[in-house]
Amino acid sequence: MSEQHDRIKQAIAEISPPLLAMDEDAVTRLAEEVVAARRIVLFGMGRELLQLKAFGMRLVHHGLDAHIAGEVTALPVTQGDLVIISIGPGDLDMHRAMAGLARKAGARLVVLTAQPLAAIPKMADAVVVIPAQTMADDSGSDALLPMGTVYEIALLIYLDLVAVKLRELTGQTLDQIRARHSNLE
Amino acid sequence: MSEQHDRIKQAIAEISPPLLAMDEDAVTRLAEEVVAARRIVLFGMGRELLQLKAFGMRLVHHGLDAHIAGEVTALPVTQGDLVIISIGPGDLDMHRAMAGLARKAGARLVVLTAQPLAAIPKMADAVVVIPAQTMADDSGSDALLPMGTVYEIALLIYLDLVAVKLRELTGQTLDQIRARHSNLE
Amino acid sequence: MSEQHDRIKQAIAEISPPLLAMDEDAVTRLAEEVVAARRIVLFGMGRELLQLKAFGMRLVHHGLDAHIAGEVTALPVTQGDLVIISIGPGDLDMHRAMAGLARKAGARLVVLTAQPLAAIPKMADAVVVIPAQTMADDSGSDALLPMGTVYEIALLIYLDLVAVKLRELTGQTLDQIRARHSNLE
Amino acid sequence: MSEQHDRIKQAIAEISPPLLAMDEDAVTRLAEEVVAARRIVLFGMGRELLQLKAFGMRLVHHGLDAHIAGEVTALPVTQGDLVIISIGPGDLDMHRAMAGLARKAGARLVVLTAQPLAAIPKMADAVVVIPAQTMADDSGSDALLPMGTVYEIALLIYLDLVAVKLRELTGQTLDQIRARHSNLE
Repeated sequence: MSEQHDRIKQAIAEISPPLLAMDEDAVTRLAEEVVAARRIVLFGMGRELLQLKAFGMRLVHHGLDAHIAGEVTALPVTQGDLVIISIGPGDLDMHRAMAGLARKAGARLVVLTAQPLAAIPKMADAVVVIPAQTMADDSGSDALLPMGTVYEIALLIYLDLVAVKLRELTGQTLDQIRARHSNLE
Repeated sequence: MSEQHDRIKQAIAEISPPLLAMDEDAVTRLAEEVVAARRIVLFGMGRELLQLKAFGMRLVHHGLDAHIAGEVTALPVTQGDLVIISIGPGDLDMHRAMAGLARKAGARLVVLTAQPLAAIPKMADAVVVIPAQTMADDSGSDALLPMGTVYEIALLIYLDLVAVKLRELTGQTLDQIRARHSNLE
Repeated sequence: MSEQHDRIKQAIAEISPPLLAMDEDAVTRLAEEVVAARRIVLFGMGRELLQLKAFGMRLVHHGLDAHIAGEVTALPVTQGDLVIISIGPGDLDMHRAMAGLARKAGARLVVLTAQPLAAIPKMADAVVVIPAQTMADDSGSDALLPMGTVYEIALLIYLDLVAVKLRELTGQTLDQIRARHSNLE
Repeated sequence: MSEQHDRIKQAIAEISPPLLAMDEDAVTRLAEEVVAARRIVLFGMGRELLQLKAFGMRLVHHGLDAHIAGEVTALPVTQGDLVIISIGPGDLDMHRAMAGLARKAGARLVVLTAQPLAAIPKMADAVVVIPAQTMADDSGSDALLPMGTVYEIALLIYLDLVAVKLRELTGQTLDQIRARHSNLE
């Protein structure tokens, strides 16, 4: 067994448990939130934002009115709209400001986090817990994947399963999804 | 007169002539292209891209289906759609590839440039010339504003005048435009 | 005189006064702040962010350690570093959160604004006032350029004059600046 | 067993094989390329770009001079620099243009792909193969994860293992890595 082979196995062994420990309806619940919303706006920072963007791309592939907060083409939110914030460590100032703005705007707020008892999840209408290591609890960890890496990878995989569920809920074919992929590449 | 005062005057004196030398219907023409399009996708690089993004924000403020090429929420283009490329210096490889993609997709292509005889404007259905200094012809220049700065500032002002015309063509009030401004700030 | 010609003149007539009304040392002062800093991080939102990014590009062209807050390659700040925030209207939640983070980190904070008496300028070590219309005071305005457009264009021109001053303060030639321009376009 | 539980297992079962089928030195090889380079610039589009950005953030956390092509703070490349392109499907016009620019600039070019026989890998100095489904070969697939999803997730995991190796090669502690994380969140 090579070191690389071992480490791939180890990485998978670190990513799987938090996914398997999520609430059994976590995938369906977020997919239903998304389908029920008039417009969806995603917010996060750093590597979590990148995974939200990967999800945002799938949302527009499904014909949904989805936006990344702060991008120039993002539209405002109000009642009937959904803001999704990912804040693995549970509380950071920029995310707290955004959560407040979402509430003030009357939008529904779903928070994805590893720290459900922290301040920002408490502001949410619904919380999705991904019980993985983040920078809130990584000190002294002997995991192979450092800092919030496991949360971030688990977030991507979770959101991709939400996208699969979305296709089912909206009754679309893969060809319909594919046809909304950018052709300017 | 302070140095700062002189330089502001000098900057204005460098920005105004290329704007005033543009075709007399340049503002109306682009506004009409935009209104006639089903979807608008903007492409550029560097500081020109930033000014296209400023325009893209105004397009969505007017309720138009506008996108920045390469952003995760950008949708594909086809016949009936409009791709706008700004390429001040007239020819760079990435812009040429994008112009080719726009044509292949069957979209209408408008190119903004200071070098209308260069390769990429020749690929366009319509060309808007902003006759300002860019990195294609800045060597030896004794202008105060270096490199492509004058082109970039003129581009922003020109596109903001297109936005004013758009409001007229679409018969919207400022309140309607303002209501589409992001409220997550 | 065509309508377009008139409007270009009108736009210039709206952009010039706020620039000419700025403090006489505003350009030199920001250039000196930038040169004195170990690292510079820029923050803003919407169209103001785009103009800060245009400035950020010029900062790296001058060999400075400059970053856009929130971009993946942005490094942390501490004492000796400079955070520059543009907040035309003077107070928005995300900007206030960022101003607080900059202070908490021990960085020096410079705020660019049209509303120097608002909350965020009060948090700053230094304030640069661009006395132009923004979304804080645009209702009922009969200016040609709507919302915060004049502030944004004036911001770009001001920052480009700061860049000119930077070249002088750092004693670099245009060729040295140009050599740091991206060649992957 | 819930549907969600099954699908998480299925997703993991689709992601693992391409990772385990990679060349046994793929992680070490890219880490060594990165350490040997003076500057690293990353290019991709869509969801692949997002994973490259996640890697780019880790590169700067390790104190490396890393950039994302097209971002305003990106510096030029020349001999001694490294350009890394991810192009799962092996050939798209924008990526081909960028590969050509990297070569023209004299930089070393590493291509990550699922299609090593395609045009762009052939332009590279070194190729890393992630043998996963992409949009080049997804039609008719009965995989749970659609389009290029498996490639993208595998790319993230692979690059995070490269980051682990980088920490070893550069002899840094986790505290040193963590200290370079942005504190403006």
